[in-house]
Amino acid sequence: MTPFKYEDGKLTILDQRKLPGEEVYIEINTPEDIYNAIKTLAVRGAPAIGVAAAYGYFVALKKWYDEETSYAFTEISTNCTPEGFLHEAQKLRDYIGSARPTAVNLRWALDRIYNKIEKPARKMIEESEEGSLSPAGVDELVKIVEEETYAIHREDVEACKAMGEYGLELLKDGMGILTHCNAGTIATSEYGTCLAPIYLGKEAGYKFHVYAGETRPLLQGARLTSWELQEEGVDVTLICDNMAASLMKSDKVDAIVVGCDRMAANGDGANKIGTLALAVLAKHYDVPFYMFVPTSTIDLKASSGHDIIIEERHGDEIYKHWFEKPMAPEGTDTYNPSFDVTDAELITAVITEEGVIYPPFNEGLCEAVRKAHEKRDKSK
Amino acid sequence: MTPFKYEDGKLTILDQRKLPGEEVYIEINTPEDIYNAIKTLAVRGAPAIGVAAAYGYFVALKKWYDEETSYAFTEISTNCTPEGFLHEAQKLRDYIGSARPTAVNLRWALDRIYNKIEKPARKMIEESEEGSLSPAGVDELVKIVEEETYAIHREDVEACKAMGEYGLELLKDGMGILTHCNAGTIATSEYGTCLAPIYLGKEAGYKFHVYAGETRPLLQGARLTSWELQEEGVDVTLICDNMAASLMKSDKVDAIVVGCDRMAANGDGANKIGTLALAVLAKHYDVPFYMFVPTSTIDLKASSGHDIIIEERHGDEIYKHWFEKPMAPEGTDTYNPSFDVTDAELITAVITEEGVIYPPFNEGLCEAVRKAHEKRDKSK
Repeated sequence: MTPFKYEDGKLTILDQRKLPGEEVYIEINTPEDIYNAIKTLAVRGAPAIGVAAAYGYFVALKKWYDEETSYAFTEISTNCTPEGFLHEAQKLRDYIGSARPTAVNLRWALDRIYNKIEKPARKMIEESEEGSLSPAGVDELVKIVEEETYAIHREDVEACKAMGEYGLELLKDGMGILTHCNAGTIATSEYGTCLAPIYLGKEAGYKFHVYAGETRPLLQGARLTSWELQEEGVDVTLICDNMAASLMKSDKVDAIVVGCDRMAANGDGANKIGTLALAVLAKHYDVPFYMFVPTSTIDLKASSGHDIIIEERHGDEIYKHWFEKPMAPEGTDTYNPSFDVTDAELITAVITEEGVIYPPFNEGLCEAVRKAHEKRDKSK
Repeated sequence: MTPFKYEDGKLTILDQRKLPGEEVYIEINTPEDIYNAIKTLAVRGAPAIGVAAAYGYFVALKKWYDEETSYAFTEISTNCTPEGFLHEAQKLRDYIGSARPTAVNLRWALDRIYNKIEKPARKMIEESEEGSLSPAGVDELVKIVEEETYAIHREDVEACKAMGEYGLELLKDGMGILTHCNAGTIATSEYGTCLAPIYLGKEAGYKFHVYAGETRPLLQGARLTSWELQEEGVDVTLICDNMAASLMKSDKVDAIVVGCDRMAANGDGANKIGTLALAVLAKHYDVPFYMFVPTSTIDLKASSGHDIIIEERHGDEIYKHWFEKPMAPEGTDTYNPSFDVTDAELITAVITEEGVIYPPFNEGLCEAVRKAHEKRDKSK
């Protein structure tokens, strides 16, 4: 199962708002389609948001380009120049990139593509004669966007697999493992981040028992993680978030594994609201707390969690969303942050696709990001 | 607003399952009525369960007695003797007392009434001639049950007020106060336990800001505490349980106040699931954690939390209860303890109607129970 499909030039996204009841794929054609899919959580999970945004960006740019060039056959299009293309590329990057503020992968993927075309486009602009249509040149730019999108996708799959292998070394057969929200297959391109070792372990014959926190308010743990693990035949027990302490106290949890939406340079990691509480509980009950973080999620520009913007969502998610009827009085004031920041000191280890990093994190995170860049450069 | 009314010999109970949507009172006539009202949480909250059980017990015994005596006018009733009455009283005590296992007030109230009639009944039995109807004697026993029920009710109101006064000394004007579940007016006979200082503070002109955890799975915080505090004009913000850590980290919580369903002699306190997590978080963030415990909730026979049975409830409460549609796949395994035990070492202070007790708790708890007994004996 995958959170999106790109086949025969057509992008569709699994509508995760409808799970576990229905498996519906929605078509993405316009910039608004991808913006809304990300904004309304039809696609969610930091890595999946990044890859889906890349595909959505490519599809939207390609559509613009196709329309402009078909127009150009009949009249002269002043847009279909390297300058026009770059302008459109920038506009789309900023628009799609504004769909959600916390997950760094969204901007990371869009910036990565944009940065890839900026230099060649500027060079073409410099070299072109005034008014030149340069269709071959723009064609080349579209090709770069397409290839970079595929690369982002491919690298995400590889990163998840690598995290799974590194993570599996930290786990033992028979363990009780607590997770929060959904950092599984449908939160990435494949395998998941923190669920990757569960899947690889299962293939190797390990028996894990996974406890999934339901993850209020939007219940990704109940709706998505329970569903995904059941589909894959992994033992899973659903708990309300407030039951985790009781589980840990009764020694049923040997490790906590969670994903990450943005990690600052010092190791402070923003993840779904409720993660911080699990980390504090883990410290109290001496349970290892592992955060699975592809290097694309590490934001070295943020020196600590203070630099991470936390998305505040609509109170209806607490007040009445999902429920038969409102479960609080009308007009109830709510506090609804979507994420919290887990202090670096509460994290036992950070697992990236470049390996396991132990505290203090700064150096290890820099090193992991450097290695990932190096690999990417080499593969060109 | 009160969780039950006893007027003109008629007992009605506010159906808290219907709040905040509807204010419906249900009539209690039979033992099954009160058993079901407690079992299904139409009435909940340790002190309210105790007092409601006392009234329900009285109403059921009275009805039995009325039926037996009206029967006795036409034929000889072999039941309506002190022996028959005591037998019925014991049967009803065991039946109603089995409605829920964790809250000690239920058994406490029923035992208290039963113990009050056992001695005089046995004396009557000894003194009676064989086959004697002794209607006057049984009449006296009914009177004792009635008076003890009123006393339990009266004492609960007084205990809540006293806890409110003691608790208010621990709080300051302008504080942000986090609470969990509902230990307010409708969880007791009046005032509430941990919300009592909020109400007394409001009367004294204090401005508190209360954060109410929604309290999954049955949402007592969302449905009851938000409603009750709004009705009383107290500022209240509703949060999901997993947002408490984020609130504490941002310094918005100056104190945590919670009720208690059963406290062991060493100070380990069973309360609504999720309380333990708040206590661990409070310790981590250095926020005082206060547990409000009427002496009727202290179980000196339990030496620590290990002796407290935790009720495990139906998984549907997590899986689909309250929701428009199931929010996890069919057949999902669930873990649904209703309470957790907060270790004594995590509790800053226990507030009883006899005063504030600081750790180590054993001696202080014994002393409080002793004082409460003494007062009760004196008031006779």
